Amino acid sequence: MANQPTRDDKFSFGLWTIGYNGTDPFGGPTRPDLDVVDAVTNLAERGAYGLTFHDDDLFAFGSTDAARQNQIDRLKGALADTGLIVPMVTTNLFSAPVFKDGGFTSNDRAVRRFAMRKVLRNIDLAAELGAKTFVMWGGREGAEYDAAKDIRSALERYREAVNLLGDYVTDKGYDMRFAIEPKPNEPRGDILLPTVGHAMAFITTLERPEMVGVNPEVGHEQMAGLNFTAGIAQALYQGKLFHIDLNGQRGIKYDQDLVFGHGDLQNAFSLVDLLENGGPNGGQSYDGPRHFDYKPSRTEDITGVWDSVSANMRTYLLLKERAASFRADPEVQQLLAASQVPELSQPTLNPGETYDDLLADRASYEDFDTDAYFGGHGFGFVRLQQLALEHLLGAR
Amino acid sequence: MANQPTRDDKFSFGLWTIGYNGTDPFGGPTRPDLDVVDAVTNLAERGAYGLTFHDDDLFAFGSTDAARQNQIDRLKGALADTGLIVPMVTTNLFSAPVFKDGGFTSNDRAVRRFAMRKVLRNIDLAAELGAKTFVMWGGREGAEYDAAKDIRSALERYREAVNLLGDYVTDKGYDMRFAIEPKPNEPRGDILLPTVGHAMAFITTLERPEMVGVNPEVGHEQMAGLNFTAGIAQALYQGKLFHIDLNGQRGIKYDQDLVFGHGDLQNAFSLVDLLENGGPNGGQSYDGPRHFDYKPSRTEDITGVWDSVSANMRTYLLLKERAASFRADPEVQQLLAASQVPELSQPTLNPGETYDDLLADRASYEDFDTDAYFGGHGFGFVRLQQLALEHLLGAR
Amino acid sequence: MANQPTRDDKFSFGLWTIGYNGTDPFGGPTRPDLDVVDAVTNLAERGAYGLTFHDDDLFAFGSTDAARQNQIDRLKGALADTGLIVPMVTTNLFSAPVFKDGGFTSNDRAVRRFAMRKVLRNIDLAAELGAKTFVMWGGREGAEYDAAKDIRSALERYREAVNLLGDYVTDKGYDMRFAIEPKPNEPRGDILLPTVGHAMAFITTLERPEMVGVNPEVGHEQMAGLNFTAGIAQALYQGKLFHIDLNGQRGIKYDQDLVFGHGDLQNAFSLVDLLENGGPNGGQSYDGPRHFDYKPSRTEDITGVWDSVSANMRTYLLLKERAASFRADPEVQQLLAASQVPELSQPTLNPGETYDDLLADRASYEDFDTDAYFGGHGFGFVRLQQLALEHLLGAR
Amino acid sequence: MANQPTRDDKFSFGLWTIGYNGTDPFGGPTRPDLDVVDAVTNLAERGAYGLTFHDDDLFAFGSTDAARQNQIDRLKGALADTGLIVPMVTTNLFSAPVFKDGGFTSNDRAVRRFAMRKVLRNIDLAAELGAKTFVMWGGREGAEYDAAKDIRSALERYREAVNLLGDYVTDKGYDMRFAIEPKPNEPRGDILLPTVGHAMAFITTLERPEMVGVNPEVGHEQMAGLNFTAGIAQALYQGKLFHIDLNGQRGIKYDQDLVFGHGDLQNAFSLVDLLENGGPNGGQSYDGPRHFDYKPSRTEDITGVWDSVSANMRTYLLLKERAASFRADPEVQQLLAASQVPELSQPTLNPGETYDDLLADRASYEDFDTDAYFGGHGFGFVRLQQLALEHLLGAR
Repeated sequence: MANQPTRDDKFSFGLWTIGYNGTDPFGGPTRPDLDVVDAVTNLAERGAYGLTFHDDDLFAFGSTDAARQNQIDRLKGALADTGLIVPMVTTNLFSAPVFKDGGFTSNDRAVRRFAMRKVLRNIDLAAELGAKTFVMWGGREGAEYDAAKDIRSALERYREAVNLLGDYVTDKGYDMRFAIEPKPNEPRGDILLPTVGHAMAFITTLERPEMVGVNPEVGHEQMAGLNFTAGIAQALYQGKLFHIDLNGQRGIKYDQDLVFGHGDLQNAFSLVDLLENGGPNGGQSYDGPRHFDYKPSRTEDITGVWDSVSANMRTYLLLKERAASFRADPEVQQLLAASQVPELSQPTLNPGETYDDLLADRASYEDFDTDAYFGGHGFGFVRLQQLALEHLLGAR
Repeated sequence: MANQPTRDDKFSFGLWTIGYNGTDPFGGPTRPDLDVVDAVTNLAERGAYGLTFHDDDLFAFGSTDAARQNQIDRLKGALADTGLIVPMVTTNLFSAPVFKDGGFTSNDRAVRRFAMRKVLRNIDLAAELGAKTFVMWGGREGAEYDAAKDIRSALERYREAVNLLGDYVTDKGYDMRFAIEPKPNEPRGDILLPTVGHAMAFITTLERPEMVGVNPEVGHEQMAGLNFTAGIAQALYQGKLFHIDLNGQRGIKYDQDLVFGHGDLQNAFSLVDLLENGGPNGGQSYDGPRHFDYKPSRTEDITGVWDSVSANMRTYLLLKERAASFRADPEVQQLLAASQVPELSQPTLNPGETYDDLLADRASYEDFDTDAYFGGHGFGFVRLQQLALEHLLGAR
Repeated sequence: MANQPTRDDKFSFGLWTIGYNGTDPFGGPTRPDLDVVDAVTNLAERGAYGLTFHDDDLFAFGSTDAARQNQIDRLKGALADTGLIVPMVTTNLFSAPVFKDGGFTSNDRAVRRFAMRKVLRNIDLAAELGAKTFVMWGGREGAEYDAAKDIRSALERYREAVNLLGDYVTDKGYDMRFAIEPKPNEPRGDILLPTVGHAMAFITTLERPEMVGVNPEVGHEQMAGLNFTAGIAQALYQGKLFHIDLNGQRGIKYDQDLVFGHGDLQNAFSLVDLLENGGPNGGQSYDGPRHFDYKPSRTEDITGVWDSVSANMRTYLLLKERAASFRADPEVQQLLAASQVPELSQPTLNPGETYDDLLADRASYEDFDTDAYFGGHGFGFVRLQQLALEHLLGAR
Repeated sequence: MANQPTRDDKFSFGLWTIGYNGTDPFGGPTRPDLDVVDAVTNLAERGAYGLTFHDDDLFAFGSTDAARQNQIDRLKGALADTGLIVPMVTTNLFSAPVFKDGGFTSNDRAVRRFAMRKVLRNIDLAAELGAKTFVMWGGREGAEYDAAKDIRSALERYREAVNLLGDYVTDKGYDMRFAIEPKPNEPRGDILLPTVGHAMAFITTLERPEMVGVNPEVGHEQMAGLNFTAGIAQALYQGKLFHIDLNGQRGIKYDQDLVFGHGDLQNAFSLVDLLENGGPNGGQSYDGPRHFDYKPSRTEDITGVWDSVSANMRTYLLLKERAASFRADPEVQQLLAASQVPELSQPTLNPGETYDDLLADRASYEDFDTDAYFGGHGFGFVRLQQLALEHLLGAR
């Protein structure tokens, strides 16, 4: 069947996603812990190619070296048995009490030093497991109150930390890049680097900006009401889409982490079209992992967990089909042309044209008929959108 | 009286702000047009130091050269009479039908060329009037539908335009910088460069990034639920706060453009503290115009318009007083220290410390007592926030 | 073709929707005015059955009696020629300057009296045209500032007005009911009766509550982040869904008035399922007009306007098809049962059971195995949602 | 000192608020459990008059009868020792796995029966402790997916449950009323009865509507972008403000439960003015408990917890002072009159006036000068708001 996932689809899942036990701010666990070997086995059976994890997902915070190593060995065994890989690893700097004011940017310097150590240790593990991307979600790097955090100092400390990590990875010769994951709020009232834009701007201040990109998550941008597809397009434009977190979110509210496509479906459609086909005017797309960072609803038992794994992949593949049919439809091509969408890829200036040339071109200004745009020169966007919708609905 | 504005306060107003006639999506004007000479005279009397404008505010779109020049001359006369200056000018690429799909990034190439010409002409006027900042708000650069706009092409066209403008201003020797004004949506469903972060990231792709900064507006960031003060702090950190738009917004909804302080009062307080005092840990602050970009409510007549002008300035000065008292309070200093706020400005690494040194420091990890953070090591942020609130309320 | 609209579908459009000239807060018209006869003719050709209007849509505010009558006669002629009907009429109490602080709840008593008169006159016209529903959207009934409006007085004045209208319609013997249209904000900072819930609660205070229901609009509830389908279900539950406004909205932001389905597609799907099939457990549905209250995007010319008319109806019919297929699928029925969805329609108490009986039933409490819900008793909601999604996508 | 709380201020706190251990979706506890005797003692010392609780706050879900009774006895002892009272009790139907799809409206009928039993038992305890209000927050009554919950069935089940409780309390002769606490979302994607309006509308369907009111929470309404003060005013207007939950929220995001006043300060000011003084036009105010339902930030230790208790009360008292000074200022009275705020309490119709009289009054329509509202008849709302702000800031 067309929508059966294979490893070529590069679908990966966080161990914390399928392992989510149902705890939320108003209730405790509804499911028992999931063993990592079960996780790997089940993901492999369902067509995923990768598992990702935080250190604390695999072995509890504060584990002895032996306990830690035992879990690492069990993971390695399962990977060997199934062929699953670990494309990405990340470090938990947000769950333990010590990180209550953050890790790299805690007001408490001793905590910052501890956070650096925890990450360095985990980078070694990531390298050992062959992970090519190291994600950094600074969920506790932020504040509830403006007087409680000096943002510029926080950015300077974040920069200090990432610079150190860049040196370390470079010196060690690890084949690994960093990806910063933005989020506007929750669990802090406001989080540092709240959007893809803020993260990309920050990256340009680093000593090794080329080693650091972004790991945008669908719901995180949508929690700020931002268009996720547009944000990803800017990240691609700036060469910074190093990794991606797919899930679903129904508007501006708490972080829902629904199955991919179970949130804003039309934006999910344009996202898959962008990732697979390069979007409206084509162009370079994305070839990294399609990583699902979601939570199986708290109402589900383990059967529901595995159903949700399949739902993520199946929805992605369905949208990929719909996007391909959209692109292949001659009527779509015709409407795109009528809407002048491809014309936007044409430079505004003529080849070699200077501003003096432009200023001398009366057709561009003095003789340009702006009145014709009143009551005329319609762009046909609504019809184009309707056609996209009908492809999405499988009605074409 | 302490809160009487003077020119040293650098308060400026847009001609379109006091000139807003009350039109909104559900109703037409409630006030007649405001003449520019009246505008200048009244602002000068109330203590403002600057007037800013879009070309179309001063002379209607499509004016003859004579009509245009007449209005420019009338403005110059009023400036000469009052001593008011024009610290900033901007171009309207969003009101006329020709710009219905944007200016620099319209799908229609002829429109893009027209937009460039309109801006170049207005830059000359800005230079002639001595404006040091040229603001670019791309309110129509965006889309309602994902298929209707290729974001990467749009960014490339935006880049082409700003590069051209940078060349022009450089070659002409104008003493002028550009400031991009982000906004997430309205009037387009999604706008290009939706936040301060996205704009700063984009700027790094330009040929002359040093010439281009941001002009953040309180309400625009708050329409995305973002912390405005934190965004300004990042802009200051990256040296990109070239100009600022002050107003009020009550949460995530349509663009309200209320008087400064009539929205999120606590964030306004921390903003003024940052602009005037450098925020929690001090440091470089902002010395440009305090520009009010707001709309006198549609319910008001001309008396209400002038009352609203005074309200903006008076609120700013009151918050400046409150911030000064907050900084001067020894108990605040004590609480900041207890909350370890100043400690964040201290580097996490010791002077000269390498990652090897850090890895060798057992105190930082192996011997670090993370358990002590459970039930202990409270940060005291709530008490600090309460003290800030009480200073804001004038209760200290 | 299955998706060709017919009059049996009861699709109606506001004259102000197709007549929207493109004005928004940042730009003037992009399209010329649309004549009412053109409007009627074109709607009829495309399969609509009804036209609705505000008085000021048909004849300008302040028209002479003769000008007013001429427009009414032209409308009547067009209705006679096409067979289109006028199922609903509404009065504009928000556009003219006199209504800048509202109509029925303006602080200015003379304005309130004028508003009553304007509505009474328009009710006569509505009755003359055979409208069965009279909608009241109080877009200007609200405030920007808490001190500016005494909400309890405003509710009392609103009540006074609706009571008067109820007396009038009753005494005149008009076959007409009222429908209040809630909206949270825009154009006022906060609007009275902001949600379907607030309006329904208010209605219970009226002298003739049975004559007054609600006219919920998709975008208005979604501007508050509320689930539109759930709100409609409560309105149906309370017998108050007198009329409905269909359109599209992409989250919490300004009022977008997109084509139906061009916003939150999954909620549109469940809405059509509710309106047509009674939702998850069936039951009474809605048989009134499917009224589109949207705005053709400002980028469109008249061709785009008519395309958008068809898009609204076509999307509704496609979703109706999808909902029918969803209901007819035996796997869906099986999953609904597994999720215990139908079980919710079963009373919690046994027939005739009292609280004493319940207290005596040890199975309900003392012997009830709550532990079984940890790690078990999964509800299977994710799988059910995935099946709904796949029906929506036409993938089943 | 004026702002020292006393028992006459009727300040109460939930046991779960000061007892919050810091768990959130991304981290475990940062503080140990708080004993109920410590809670009572400390609240009493700081000036509170009441403690409230969920059954599960006092004794763990599934406690033996003996363990339960022991905790009840310990609470009673502490109350006796301190004079603190229990003005309100509520039942936890949301934390245990059994309630993962809700309590009264779980799809699972056995769960609904268990929920009824749990509440009945807790009502007996509430009566025993003298609580006059029984709050019902249905945090798990809702769904993530539209197909998963039949809303009308859910409302019918909710109604069945509340009717049963009403019978029970009436028959037992308990002096107790019910207060429904609305919330739009979190922990469910959408919650039943999402706003004050929806809850009040639902209440009118009950068999004993007079026994049931609302318990609005600041943050819950603000999570939907609604004006809390306006919602409270409607609840007062409809005689349904039976209890209130005070806290702070910074806009539309996850449920923050900040200290009262640490969120939207201006709305907190108008709220206190409404509760204490009856708002703009005076009138009946609120004399029930001022109940704080907040969470001491996770960054705090036990000292910070007690500081946050004091901060809630102190902020309320400061705002009460500010509101009194606002009301007492003759300039405010003058501006209110100029803004015609008191005029809104005057009926729109003359005494005894019928619609025929109104229709015959040419002054109200035919001779009414609507043109005078263009450029004139300004309402002066901005100046009034500025005066309110300055009173809030203690600058008058």
